[in-house]
Amino acid sequence: MQINDLDLLTDTPFVAVDLDVIERNITSIAKLAKEARVKLRPHTKTHKSPYVAKKQLEAGASGITVATLGEAEVMANSGINDILIAFPLVGKQKLNRFSRLLHHADLMVAFDDIVVGQGINEVGEYHRKKIPVYIDVDTGLGRMGRDPEESVVHILEIAKLPFLEIKGLMSHTGHAYKEGSEEAILNVAIEDATLMHQTKIELERKGLHIPEISVGATATARFIKEIPYATEMRPGMYVYNDRFVMSTGGAKEEDCAVSIFATVVSKPNNDRFIIDAGSKTLAADVFWHGGHGQIRGHDNLVIKSLSEEHGTVEIQGKTGLSIGDVIEIIPNHICPSINLADEMYGFRKGILERMIPISGRGKNR
Amino acid sequence: MQINDLDLLTDTPFVAVDLDVIERNITSIAKLAKEARVKLRPHTKTHKSPYVAKKQLEAGASGITVATLGEAEVMANSGINDILIAFPLVGKQKLNRFSRLLHHADLMVAFDDIVVGQGINEVGEYHRKKIPVYIDVDTGLGRMGRDPEESVVHILEIAKLPFLEIKGLMSHTGHAYKEGSEEAILNVAIEDATLMHQTKIELERKGLHIPEISVGATATARFIKEIPYATEMRPGMYVYNDRFVMSTGGAKEEDCAVSIFATVVSKPNNDRFIIDAGSKTLAADVFWHGGHGQIRGHDNLVIKSLSEEHGTVEIQGKTGLSIGDVIEIIPNHICPSINLADEMYGFRKGILERMIPISGRGKNR
Repeated sequence: MQINDLDLLTDTPFVAVDLDVIERNITSIAKLAKEARVKLRPHTKTHKSPYVAKKQLEAGASGITVATLGEAEVMANSGINDILIAFPLVGKQKLNRFSRLLHHADLMVAFDDIVVGQGINEVGEYHRKKIPVYIDVDTGLGRMGRDPEESVVHILEIAKLPFLEIKGLMSHTGHAYKEGSEEAILNVAIEDATLMHQTKIELERKGLHIPEISVGATATARFIKEIPYATEMRPGMYVYNDRFVMSTGGAKEEDCAVSIFATVVSKPNNDRFIIDAGSKTLAADVFWHGGHGQIRGHDNLVIKSLSEEHGTVEIQGKTGLSIGDVIEIIPNHICPSINLADEMYGFRKGILERMIPISGRGKNR
Repeated sequence: MQINDLDLLTDTPFVAVDLDVIERNITSIAKLAKEARVKLRPHTKTHKSPYVAKKQLEAGASGITVATLGEAEVMANSGINDILIAFPLVGKQKLNRFSRLLHHADLMVAFDDIVVGQGINEVGEYHRKKIPVYIDVDTGLGRMGRDPEESVVHILEIAKLPFLEIKGLMSHTGHAYKEGSEEAILNVAIEDATLMHQTKIELERKGLHIPEISVGATATARFIKEIPYATEMRPGMYVYNDRFVMSTGGAKEEDCAVSIFATVVSKPNNDRFIIDAGSKTLAADVFWHGGHGQIRGHDNLVIKSLSEEHGTVEIQGKTGLSIGDVIEIIPNHICPSINLADEMYGFRKGILERMIPISGRGKNR
């Protein structure tokens, strides 16, 4: 990333974002969604920033997705109205907070079990209105959701709760990230949407209308025109991209909007140097092709291991870098890296344009 | 951990600490250090909390260690004076911040290269006083520091800088965590201290007095009476303990002062359930015996994988747990978990006694 006044910004580690690249990423996925006639409801857990969420809405997103009630509170407080909380709200305190937030935002909530639905239903009853909900279906990830067949039976039970309105089925194709080829990724996406479509058909046969089929994951987002049945997509990482997304072919290095800047602080020998970015900066997510991030412009350097504050970089061959030099790292997984920072520096053509607070950082409940 | 009013605290995930257990851990290591006639300078990167640091100082610690200048600022602002910054300060902005902080705290700083020493020396010159420094020696970890022989030559060069006072040699025995037996861990500790002692002897032969030999790591701390030559120890994790420390035999489950409380939010089938603690709560540090944390009281449950907000728990056999139940997790590595939370709930005999702000959280520069 071009940074003209790096001398003024040597207090590393810091997170920098190229505003032109984010805007390009936001626009291009919005265009893709529009062409595919699919609603775009980006997952904001990647950026946790109302500033970025508003850019996504201005570009045509129909609403946003958040991972936690705390993130929904942050987004609603910034004036964003249409929010899907893509995580089950369980327990008295969560339901009380949800109920309060309903007074000033249009909220939807996703879950996969009638026990959770009963709590949401009580909130609906209190407000004397139906709460729109999405039901998770497991299409292969093996996390939330029953398999399609069991989902049909269970969703019909949930549908009997009078203060819920079942708006859609949703899934996440996180398992697509480990696929080796474009074709295999597309197959995951098609299977995912098809399984949800079949579930919808079964439910509609039983008299329950399902308006939305909502698919997730940046890994599969670029194929949206080729994915049948989907009515909505919820990609998150596309806004910044990272090594995981690059490994799926979904982004090139120039599409990675965010870098972590770090400084070389030690060079004990010719085999390694140490940087001031460790797992408390880059996060410890492991990349299956090795290394803890990609150092831009230095293909012969591998971030071999992370301690909490130290990154140990293996020098393969030679490097011109020495103590005091600043390097720029594309993290393995951008979402947890962003969650470790309080703010980002936003650059445009090398000039620092604004500080962007990561207001949803740490809102893990 | 006993929590009497868990119904009032179901808004998970949250971090809870048993105050009696922390105090017991703090006292017992202080006693061990005293008996071994070794100074105790606990590493506060584990807790990042002035409240806990002050407990350590009251129990007899001679000062504290921090991982970053930002943590030093937090601790100094809370009135703590004697601080070792165990990380090289590199770059104009870091040196300016260091210089400002020197006006209101006694600071020492560790590094391993004369290039870093030159920057610190300039700050000393500006203040017209010698800055006490520690030099890292690599005794086997392969991170900071030259090997002992090269260290001698290099330290003699550093010692020529007029505004530095070389106070000690330091190392970290992080590699001890992977040893399989008490004997092997003790051997790592003895080799570590012996290598530093030999380095010190060589330096003293050349006329440079080295007052301190400072050893690190909770893994080796309990053997301090059997470790020759060490004059100071800097354990961090002992204050809370975790799965890593338990794996070294350095703690039992009842010595783990901190747990993450999480709620079961989904149970799609009999093989798994999903909790609301993922990598943004527990951190993604991998434990070599498997799993992403230990669920207290449920030996047949394995936290198989973490997404950002979801933990997927594999049920081996049967479980009585269902949606809404709260579980208690000992993290793999307590330090990055704590760094993901803004505050902890402090309990004593089941009663919530205080909220403890994690004031150094996220201070990664």
